[in-house]
Amino acid sequence: MPQTNAPRGFAAAEYKTRAAAMQKLMAAAKMDAVLLTAAADIQYFSGFQTRFWQSPTRPWFLALPAKGAPVAVIPEIGKALMQKTHITDIRCWPSPRPQDEGISLLAELLNGWSGRGGKIGIPKIGMALGAESAARMPLLDWLKLRAALSGEIADCAEMLQRQRMIKSPREIDKIRHSAKIVSAAFAELPNRTKNAASVRQICAQLQADILLNGADEVPYLAAAFGGGGYQSVITPPDDKIPATGDIIFIDIGAVFDGYFCDFNRNFVFGKAAAKTAAAHAILGRALRAGIAAARPGKTAAAVWRAMRAEIPAAGNIGRMGHGVGLQLTEPPSITENDETELRAGMVLAVEPSIQTGGGVMVREENIAIRETGEAELLTVAAGDELPVIKQK
Amino acid sequence: MPQTNAPRGFAAAEYKTRAAAMQKLMAAAKMDAVLLTAAADIQYFSGFQTRFWQSPTRPWFLALPAKGAPVAVIPEIGKALMQKTHITDIRCWPSPRPQDEGISLLAELLNGWSGRGGKIGIPKIGMALGAESAARMPLLDWLKLRAALSGEIADCAEMLQRQRMIKSPREIDKIRHSAKIVSAAFAELPNRTKNAASVRQICAQLQADILLNGADEVPYLAAAFGGGGYQSVITPPDDKIPATGDIIFIDIGAVFDGYFCDFNRNFVFGKAAAKTAAAHAILGRALRAGIAAARPGKTAAAVWRAMRAEIPAAGNIGRMGHGVGLQLTEPPSITENDETELRAGMVLAVEPSIQTGGGVMVREENIAIRETGEAELLTVAAGDELPVIKQK
Repeated sequence: MPQTNAPRGFAAAEYKTRAAAMQKLMAAAKMDAVLLTAAADIQYFSGFQTRFWQSPTRPWFLALPAKGAPVAVIPEIGKALMQKTHITDIRCWPSPRPQDEGISLLAELLNGWSGRGGKIGIPKIGMALGAESAARMPLLDWLKLRAALSGEIADCAEMLQRQRMIKSPREIDKIRHSAKIVSAAFAELPNRTKNAASVRQICAQLQADILLNGADEVPYLAAAFGGGGYQSVITPPDDKIPATGDIIFIDIGAVFDGYFCDFNRNFVFGKAAAKTAAAHAILGRALRAGIAAARPGKTAAAVWRAMRAEIPAAGNIGRMGHGVGLQLTEPPSITENDETELRAGMVLAVEPSIQTGGGVMVREENIAIRETGEAELLTVAAGDELPVIKQK
Repeated sequence: MPQTNAPRGFAAAEYKTRAAAMQKLMAAAKMDAVLLTAAADIQYFSGFQTRFWQSPTRPWFLALPAKGAPVAVIPEIGKALMQKTHITDIRCWPSPRPQDEGISLLAELLNGWSGRGGKIGIPKIGMALGAESAARMPLLDWLKLRAALSGEIADCAEMLQRQRMIKSPREIDKIRHSAKIVSAAFAELPNRTKNAASVRQICAQLQADILLNGADEVPYLAAAFGGGGYQSVITPPDDKIPATGDIIFIDIGAVFDGYFCDFNRNFVFGKAAAKTAAAHAILGRALRAGIAAARPGKTAAAVWRAMRAEIPAAGNIGRMGHGVGLQLTEPPSITENDETELRAGMVLAVEPSIQTGGGVMVREENIAIRETGEAELLTVAAGDELPVIKQK
């Protein structure tokens, strides 16, 4: 069982390092400030954590100047919680206030930093909201703000992605902790599953165990089953009871202190058919090949090719993994065409899949790229032999 | 304990009714189609449910023509799951495919419906993404799509909100079921709490119980505690152990079959101070006044005023409730200025708050507006007396 009292939060120094690294990139791009609106970006620079992002009503802002500390511009309802972070300059308005949802406060702040002819970075909100990014403010408000800004607007999404892709040792600690919690719950699953349990009941118990083992939440869960494979890897559990010989796939994204792990496990009810067992073992070889290829200086595409070479089955194979961190999936993509260079500190979900007669089978582990040598496995790796859920 | 095998899904007829109601509004606005990108909107018209929305990598689309059934334009990874819904026209592309994330498929589909001079409705994605709405596609892709469309773009956010605000009896069944599950878990909380448990441990057990009672997930949780009140109502639980006389506030948003409940409970450790007990009772009176005022033809603001009149404490009081449904918070807002007229079928979280010496206290229940008479309470209402968590 993972320790239940793993350290929480980060030292203020880590947030200073993150801001300084971003400010170095900003200086190179001649940006006077960047404006952040998305949960993960705001959390990354402030440590502000809340599940209140579930409510779409209110926008939240964090602005980082070229020099100095970030400033929060947020609804009053978040003030006391933001005061617990290292952020000291916190400006609030009583939201909801449809006629001015923080826009005048923001304009004053940003214009003070940039002046006429300055440059404000935004993660592709404006004219170029790109892949994997999302604006979490009403576009109508964005247009109001843009009209009120004296400086130029530029895109800072790529520099932000580049920085967030490389995790600090303390960030990796959190992902590892989350992965160990889920690994332990997966390992116990066959013992926790009652005879004739439905997929939904199995998954409810698993989620409960993950929470009681110390995860904060389980935002992602998919479960599918079938004879020798499954049709969909993103389906929620249902009330069906698997039959003898069926395999069940459960994919979990659990969060500890803001950081996701994301990986799946396969189990067999009773005894696996030889073909099913063989497919599971092939995926194990693909996983090990992918992990072996995941070294600094190699590319995401090279990891994909290393796995693809182990998979004899025909058919198109799409993405076989991605970054993991403050979000369930982050750049890079482990695809045939993603030439992102791997660097130490990147955390990846490595996720080979194979087409079987019964549908698809997938295996997944989480790794952290090391400076030298093989990547660190953050999950407790599944064995090649399918774990068995006994039936009476 | 709520029944664990509550009905799932909706009959195909309900989806037809929803589409027909929207098509009536579209006809009045002369729209040839509407294009939806957000999870709740897509689920509303298709029944498509997955937690895969946690991954920001891929966009998803559902388009509803002026006549006929909706068409899904989605990544291949979702095809098998979408085939389980009532949607029969499903068009897929192998995503991630950065150079064309479904845009050419969408343009072909929408241009086929609207032609030159036609009109496509979008929930304020384009030039007017308004409050409470969010675009879940890259804006860069949106600009590409807009360039490829032969028709005009119009806003359909308000008509969509207006329709989604009124829940069908079957939608209310799901919210009621979720509320009963959480009510039961809250009622058991004092018996499930071990001596000297931290707030985090109390909340982990509560979440586990809610899941084992039959909820699908617990996306929202906030917990705060203190002597006579708390500082923040959106804070996540921490490792502190409350002291005798402290009250703890726990707010839960749990989902059953896609639908949220959203309400809180307060508990006292040992014995409540007289002032604390009095504040809790005042909130009870405010709640009952708000619920009594929540009738068809009255406004959201009238509910706010009915509650405000019961709260003697000074100070600004902001939003005291909101709609609940496919999202944790939905329109309308129960604020001083929201003049939305209440109608039968609306589901509201009624949420009065009071400033105390120790911070703030909040109570919350969920109701459904009835055609006649008082609203239906969907939660098992908390008593005015604070439930006690015993300490040894």
